[in-house]
Amino acid sequence: MRIAFLGLGAMGAPMAKNLVAAGHDLTVWNRSAARTEGFTALGARVAATPAAAAREAEVIITMLADPPAVAAVLTGPDGVLATARPGAVLVDMSTVRPEDSRRFAALAAEKGLGWLDSPVSGSVGAAESGQLIALVGGEAADLERARPALSAMCKEIHHLGPAGAGSTVKLAFNLMVGVQVLALAEAAHLAAAGGFDRQKFLALAAGSVIGSPIVKLKAPAMAAEDFTPAFALKLMKKDMALAVQEGSQLGVPLPTAAAALQSYVAGVGAGLGDLDFAAIYRVLQGA
Amino acid sequence: MRIAFLGLGAMGAPMAKNLVAAGHDLTVWNRSAARTEGFTALGARVAATPAAAAREAEVIITMLADPPAVAAVLTGPDGVLATARPGAVLVDMSTVRPEDSRRFAALAAEKGLGWLDSPVSGSVGAAESGQLIALVGGEAADLERARPALSAMCKEIHHLGPAGAGSTVKLAFNLMVGVQVLALAEAAHLAAAGGFDRQKFLALAAGSVIGSPIVKLKAPAMAAEDFTPAFALKLMKKDMALAVQEGSQLGVPLPTAAAALQSYVAGVGAGLGDLDFAAIYRVLQGA
Amino acid sequence: MRIAFLGLGAMGAPMAKNLVAAGHDLTVWNRSAARTEGFTALGARVAATPAAAAREAEVIITMLADPPAVAAVLTGPDGVLATARPGAVLVDMSTVRPEDSRRFAALAAEKGLGWLDSPVSGSVGAAESGQLIALVGGEAADLERARPALSAMCKEIHHLGPAGAGSTVKLAFNLMVGVQVLALAEAAHLAAAGGFDRQKFLALAAGSVIGSPIVKLKAPAMAAEDFTPAFALKLMKKDMALAVQEGSQLGVPLPTAAAALQSYVAGVGAGLGDLDFAAIYRVLQGA
Amino acid sequence: MRIAFLGLGAMGAPMAKNLVAAGHDLTVWNRSAARTEGFTALGARVAATPAAAAREAEVIITMLADPPAVAAVLTGPDGVLATARPGAVLVDMSTVRPEDSRRFAALAAEKGLGWLDSPVSGSVGAAESGQLIALVGGEAADLERARPALSAMCKEIHHLGPAGAGSTVKLAFNLMVGVQVLALAEAAHLAAAGGFDRQKFLALAAGSVIGSPIVKLKAPAMAAEDFTPAFALKLMKKDMALAVQEGSQLGVPLPTAAAALQSYVAGVGAGLGDLDFAAIYRVLQGA
Repeated sequence: MRIAFLGLGAMGAPMAKNLVAAGHDLTVWNRSAARTEGFTALGARVAATPAAAAREAEVIITMLADPPAVAAVLTGPDGVLATARPGAVLVDMSTVRPEDSRRFAALAAEKGLGWLDSPVSGSVGAAESGQLIALVGGEAADLERARPALSAMCKEIHHLGPAGAGSTVKLAFNLMVGVQVLALAEAAHLAAAGGFDRQKFLALAAGSVIGSPIVKLKAPAMAAEDFTPAFALKLMKKDMALAVQEGSQLGVPLPTAAAALQSYVAGVGAGLGDLDFAAIYRVLQGA
Repeated sequence: MRIAFLGLGAMGAPMAKNLVAAGHDLTVWNRSAARTEGFTALGARVAATPAAAAREAEVIITMLADPPAVAAVLTGPDGVLATARPGAVLVDMSTVRPEDSRRFAALAAEKGLGWLDSPVSGSVGAAESGQLIALVGGEAADLERARPALSAMCKEIHHLGPAGAGSTVKLAFNLMVGVQVLALAEAAHLAAAGGFDRQKFLALAAGSVIGSPIVKLKAPAMAAEDFTPAFALKLMKKDMALAVQEGSQLGVPLPTAAAALQSYVAGVGAGLGDLDFAAIYRVLQGA
Repeated sequence: MRIAFLGLGAMGAPMAKNLVAAGHDLTVWNRSAARTEGFTALGARVAATPAAAAREAEVIITMLADPPAVAAVLTGPDGVLATARPGAVLVDMSTVRPEDSRRFAALAAEKGLGWLDSPVSGSVGAAESGQLIALVGGEAADLERARPALSAMCKEIHHLGPAGAGSTVKLAFNLMVGVQVLALAEAAHLAAAGGFDRQKFLALAAGSVIGSPIVKLKAPAMAAEDFTPAFALKLMKKDMALAVQEGSQLGVPLPTAAAALQSYVAGVGAGLGDLDFAAIYRVLQGA
Repeated sequence: MRIAFLGLGAMGAPMAKNLVAAGHDLTVWNRSAARTEGFTALGARVAATPAAAAREAEVIITMLADPPAVAAVLTGPDGVLATARPGAVLVDMSTVRPEDSRRFAALAAEKGLGWLDSPVSGSVGAAESGQLIALVGGEAADLERARPALSAMCKEIHHLGPAGAGSTVKLAFNLMVGVQVLALAEAAHLAAAGGFDRQKFLALAAGSVIGSPIVKLKAPAMAAEDFTPAFALKLMKKDMALAVQEGSQLGVPLPTAAAALQSYVAGVGAGLGDLDFAAIYRVLQGA
């Protein structure tokens, strides 16, 4: 299958590699060309613009930082919509707001393109091993056309509803991830300030009723203060900000998410943005 | 073993029954005598005051609503400390602040009594089936003396450190429980307001990276809006308030816990206090 | 002076009337034509589109609900930028984010138009009496050209800096207004729950160290529970949401503003959106 | 009048001096004797214990750090209640919870003593110049007996209701003070991050609709980053914590106060506790 992949960040690069490894005919593009190095050797083509990458593709995948970045890559002067062939399917795997997804879906439809919003659950490790979970919004027929591409990157593919449904569920999930990990950090500091061994506490917590998979993953990281990025704190801040925006637009109060967002904002301000988001532990410490 | 059990609330009553069932020689007391009915038939004695209940006991267990209630039962005119025999062990299974536990431990020591703070993880169902988890602070020797009593009520007994350690860990755990369940409610409302099926969302969430045991337990309850109390919202409010107090005293900022506390306070104000704390779902709805 | 005025809401309508009253040659437009009624009788022209209104104007004023509304009126198919004459000055008096103002300023510059962001401090009463305070960002020369228009609506005109400066200061001011009034409501409920007379408390508070002009204005409204809208709660929610977004984008944690935003969101959800924002008092009550 | 004054902190010392200056017969006591130096030279007596200070007094004033400190001075082994003469009036000018005040009032009544809770509005400067504002709860007759003492320290004396009313109003006032000053800091950082001059912003804010007396006082302090303590940040943290406790006990959600408390807690953790509470400005900065 002829696939264009736009956005070779920490997540995007390993996802694109899995597409090549699965035998797809891949063209990649990235805003800074440095990150495209190595893809030629793998057998992929490198395009100079989103428009050039999209021209011949059957499936066009975007994996970008935020809604304005997706808008620019799709609708900009050298954007995807300028060249994509009718019948191709756009698959946006970035985390954006549902309203962004619906707006992009409408633009795609005007050009005769299919649309899926398909943000993923899972971080860098899962991207490398092709074990991501796709949360898909859009038409079932478009999903069937894009499935060979998604299957090369994801172990589970959930079709959740029409355009926007994938983004809705992704924001709601990340809200909970961001809050659970901050609450874990609060509890660990409270236990430590009360004289209890922090590492012992984190191990106990992971084995308790609040021990979700994400807590089990991040508790040892906090215990060791090893914040090698799997999902960068600045990206968690961005996703929490989108969730809080969405809540205020839809009329849903989000008290813990809004409080957590301020801590992630403080974390970026304190220079922790490129560490894993579990480094939120340090914000409470330093503060 | 001769055991006194003080406080026959929703948790205390089934815990006391498990002590009788295990063959212990039990004397019970409760502030309102109505809740002692039925214990005579089971073979327990009913005492008119904490002092009377404690007089002959080897192990004296308190399971009460809050720190002032424990203080009253221990130090009041007809309180436990007036009659308890040197060598007996006080076991406070209530959720209180670590400083309360340390203060009570010191009072116990003055009278030659042992002390354990042993709040439990688990709610009404686990109390009935003897499957609670004990979080124990105090001397190892005191724990050994009280172990036969604890074993009749708990499937796991964790000795966590000196007096206060049990209370420290319990508050930190409940903080996370209260925050996780509120964040689940926020996410469910956000998904629903975005047009996604609420019940489908809650099922997805329980199976995702944030699906801790408590989330797996409460997600179906929220989906069904079945808030039969396992752990009453007003008690969660009380525990969150103790955690927030403890944080401000120890100098630990607790941004998500403090925000969550305000929602639980609002829940009590909205008349939801006697429902299960998962009814926090309705606070966001009604608001 | 030939002036176009776009957006005849609760604030815009009296502002436009003051322009006619000052003798300006006015053309008005509003999305729903019903609100233009009566302007013909006053001597103004009514245009069918923003483009038609702007065609001959020297100063083009927008007073709209939110950033997307301003974007649509400026850049839409029948928008202002399609017809405005080079040399005219766009004056956006809506409350938007600084980045919106800078983006609109750049679009204006491309067409040879001047730009001012000039949100106002003051609510309906001040709009009617021409006593608003203009917070102006943009070039000094553009301000001089637009001054006759602004002077007809405002008692004070503060030139704060380049494009975006007006919006920056406006958001920061409204953040404080929203927080102060919610904190007043919190304190009044706390005093009332403690048995103190609510009306007496509000009068005392207004005369105390926290008695700012906005507190002195809203305390009697809360005491009387008279929430006739001067500034609608839904608009306060919108402005607080813009401030919180701006904070998370610029890396500034806004703990009280983010918490307050959730209460205003809850207020809109509880059906209070069209009342004055002092009705936030009822959110704490009902909750 | 024979007066005992217990607690010679930053506020208490100048208050006691004003009592001597007004010609009262004063006996002072302080936990650390160092702070009593100089009082002999002024003509006051220095007592070794609260009991000794209170023995002959007609009015006994406490100005202490927190509820446990007041409890210890009143009810401890060498406490006031051990020696105070029936008919004397206890005047607690500390900031405590209304329930504390009511409990102390009941203890005083048992000994035949009068009671006033009379926390004050105003900080060190007002204490020095005798310009405090007394917020009084208790019986009118007790106030009349204590009035000569209060008049030497206060420019205004408000009788607000029965025992506890003074504490209720004080906590509600301080809640608003703490929130207003943090919101000012948030807005100033937001404006500064948006490129606007911080000092100019703070001056504008003080002159705007949110310019309360406390904002007008603290805005120049923030502009100059001069945090010479008038009211220490650690004391503001303590008062906010009491207000949040009171709210959760009475069932009043306090969203902005609870969020602000976490910032003041972080401020103490960051070593700012002994600076003026306007140094909360630095918590947002550093974070």
